[in-house]
Amino acid sequence: MNDRVILNHFVSVERLSNIEVMKLIRRGEAFKKGATWQPEKQQYFAANLFFENSTRTHTSFETAERKLGVDVLSFDTSTSSIQKGETLYDTILTLSALGTDVCVIRHSEEAFFQPLIDSKTIKTQIVNGGDGSGQHPSQCLLDLMTIYEEFGTFDSLKVAIVGDIVHSRVAKSNMQMLRRLGAEVYFSGPKEWFSEEYMAFGTYLPIDELVKSVDVMMMLRVQHERHHDGKQVFSKEAYHQTYGLTIERASQMKPSAIIMHPAPVNRDVELASELVEAKQSRIVTQMTNGVYARMAILEAVLTEAIL
Amino acid sequence: MNDRVILNHFVSVERLSNIEVMKLIRRGEAFKKGATWQPEKQQYFAANLFFENSTRTHTSFETAERKLGVDVLSFDTSTSSIQKGETLYDTILTLSALGTDVCVIRHSEEAFFQPLIDSKTIKTQIVNGGDGSGQHPSQCLLDLMTIYEEFGTFDSLKVAIVGDIVHSRVAKSNMQMLRRLGAEVYFSGPKEWFSEEYMAFGTYLPIDELVKSVDVMMMLRVQHERHHDGKQVFSKEAYHQTYGLTIERASQMKPSAIIMHPAPVNRDVELASELVEAKQSRIVTQMTNGVYARMAILEAVLTEAIL
Amino acid sequence: MNDRVILNHFVSVERLSNIEVMKLIRRGEAFKKGATWQPEKQQYFAANLFFENSTRTHTSFETAERKLGVDVLSFDTSTSSIQKGETLYDTILTLSALGTDVCVIRHSEEAFFQPLIDSKTIKTQIVNGGDGSGQHPSQCLLDLMTIYEEFGTFDSLKVAIVGDIVHSRVAKSNMQMLRRLGAEVYFSGPKEWFSEEYMAFGTYLPIDELVKSVDVMMMLRVQHERHHDGKQVFSKEAYHQTYGLTIERASQMKPSAIIMHPAPVNRDVELASELVEAKQSRIVTQMTNGVYARMAILEAVLTEAIL
Repeated sequence: MNDRVILNHFVSVERLSNIEVMKLIRRGEAFKKGATWQPEKQQYFAANLFFENSTRTHTSFETAERKLGVDVLSFDTSTSSIQKGETLYDTILTLSALGTDVCVIRHSEEAFFQPLIDSKTIKTQIVNGGDGSGQHPSQCLLDLMTIYEEFGTFDSLKVAIVGDIVHSRVAKSNMQMLRRLGAEVYFSGPKEWFSEEYMAFGTYLPIDELVKSVDVMMMLRVQHERHHDGKQVFSKEAYHQTYGLTIERASQMKPSAIIMHPAPVNRDVELASELVEAKQSRIVTQMTNGVYARMAILEAVLTEAIL
Repeated sequence: MNDRVILNHFVSVERLSNIEVMKLIRRGEAFKKGATWQPEKQQYFAANLFFENSTRTHTSFETAERKLGVDVLSFDTSTSSIQKGETLYDTILTLSALGTDVCVIRHSEEAFFQPLIDSKTIKTQIVNGGDGSGQHPSQCLLDLMTIYEEFGTFDSLKVAIVGDIVHSRVAKSNMQMLRRLGAEVYFSGPKEWFSEEYMAFGTYLPIDELVKSVDVMMMLRVQHERHHDGKQVFSKEAYHQTYGLTIERASQMKPSAIIMHPAPVNRDVELASELVEAKQSRIVTQMTNGVYARMAILEAVLTEAIL
Repeated sequence: MNDRVILNHFVSVERLSNIEVMKLIRRGEAFKKGATWQPEKQQYFAANLFFENSTRTHTSFETAERKLGVDVLSFDTSTSSIQKGETLYDTILTLSALGTDVCVIRHSEEAFFQPLIDSKTIKTQIVNGGDGSGQHPSQCLLDLMTIYEEFGTFDSLKVAIVGDIVHSRVAKSNMQMLRRLGAEVYFSGPKEWFSEEYMAFGTYLPIDELVKSVDVMMMLRVQHERHHDGKQVFSKEAYHQTYGLTIERASQMKPSAIIMHPAPVNRDVELASELVEAKQSRIVTQMTNGVYARMAILEAVLTEAIL
């Protein structure tokens, strides 16, 4: 048990050391192979508060909780007292007072978690399920786990991150962590969605050049719902042909290379529909690994919770 | 255990043989008497996706799942990624990847289940909880179970199906299955809601004639919400007097005859309000039997899921 | 076990004798110290139907149910058949038929529970989670438990109930029960929100006089959402200065006196924000005690359910 990471809250993957990240990945792999948690209390309670729409992350966390034997409280953000004007702080204070051990929260406000983890009264562990355009650390961890499971190392792996980087909650974490863990990072997609600051972590290249040489094609969802300026810059067809992973481009990938996507996929926009369930795709694997990565996260914070 | 039906998905009751239907009915009766399931895995996961409003079917399936010891994932269709435009196919692909063993789905699209059961990637079992104006096979099974429990046979039983047949998801299954199992089927209600194709399964008669001779008065809900043409053909009072089971008509039923209704009842429209909880009514019994019939269905598909 | 209260439904705390109330309080304290329930059936089902927004009461009841080992059915009032026009009566009749042992209900209609507990067909236990402007008996019980836990007696305790008494579901129960149990009750707040009938239970005094002498300052939420006449009588600042518990007023409280509030708090309206988590505040304790008080209530009604 002394190879377990002890976390106080899980709000950002960048705050972890490389050793801690690797321990979480390996613990996720162990859960996938059938390891079980030996809890120290008889009963744990989790609440999942998703203030933004989600299928994958919400259900994945809930599955992880149930696999650990944690009781999941139903919490419907649309019928809570938040509708009477109660703040997120007072809601979490309440859940803490009721004995909730961990709250998994997705919220549109960046760094929503800061006042919660700074509070002396709130005792519940906070897990960030996505904060606005900020971070999505559990997605980063499952992406890293999927790459590590595939290649057994990050060292000198070539990973392309392609598409709507600027609106992606996970791309920024992934580029930093991949770099830190020894991979080479490349970018592609519309230049408008690229920022100079990414240059510190990798190199921008045209997709037709990248596709032949990388080990991982990490395609990003075009976040229609976050392009608030109203103008759709590209038609779906044009985006697909210019920046997307078409069937033709995929055919030029190295045989050992894999396709990743955080999903939900805009089929035939960033990725050809047929590729979602193709042999080189690890999209379904990412979803499956998400459950095990989240079990590792939850175990780590719940263990701290009882120390 | 070798008298158990092994099902791959449960989407239509007509696809089952008479022997299979009778096995499910008897297994439902066994569950009612306290039989328990001996699962082969330690933990099973179910998700119930109801895209149309429901109390009875949704809660009945959930109760059945919990009685079997299955973990029920909360899935709120209004806050899922379907709101970001994700398709039903991709949602179920996700749930399958997360390890969900069975998805119970109600959806407005007829035969929504076909692409799901045709998929090679989707591993989860699909149970049809009602598809548009198509079918409602678990309701059919619980109706058959309730009749069989009452009379011990279908042979030569006279069953009247009365009312909004054309909009009923269950009437068409019931008429076919009852006929196949040996019962005599009769119809009544507005001729506008009757179709020539039903003649293959039974005979249309005026309600005042039927009520005196049949063993089962199966009343159907007037589906106000499916009469999309806007014109309400009948006032509630006129419908009740002309086609409904009034207290006076019910008094002419054979002493051994029973009243059935899939509920929710429009009280004093298709059925006099006082009759809902009357001695001859089996409406509450139908709801109770629904839990046990659904346990039989779920056991059958979950057993297949692990073979 | 013979010191347990046997309840048939829990709809109003005033219907209980003082002895019964004290037994429930003591049983809540026992649960807080780790007592467990020895259920007589293997599996119990609860459904929580909240037709009005709630975080605290809803989650508190659900936590209490899970701590007792009761299976909690998910019930979303917004997607139930109530949307097809089904009545509350028929919904509860359904849940009863499905084998639900207890329904916890919050509903905007005063005394909504009466037809449910009068029914001969409905077998499920009914727990009132708040009926319109009527009662909120589980809140009353947890308030009493919190006071008793603090002082060990109600005898001659001075309790001030301050603020929006007329719109409070719990103030009327609290004033009656506190008086019955031997406490002295005082009122303060806007005279417009005060009614002559309260005079039977206590005395109206200015807040600046009360604050120095009472043992409990029970502050009430200004129910903005129930002031339907449209005119906001006071600005938030004016209310706080004139009738609220300001930091200055709190500094004049007796050292042993405590602050209570049913929450959610309108911070800086009825109560200074800093006081919510202050040393003299028992607001977090009230929330924690709510779980244990509700365990006592649920145990009492579920025990009756199987006699």
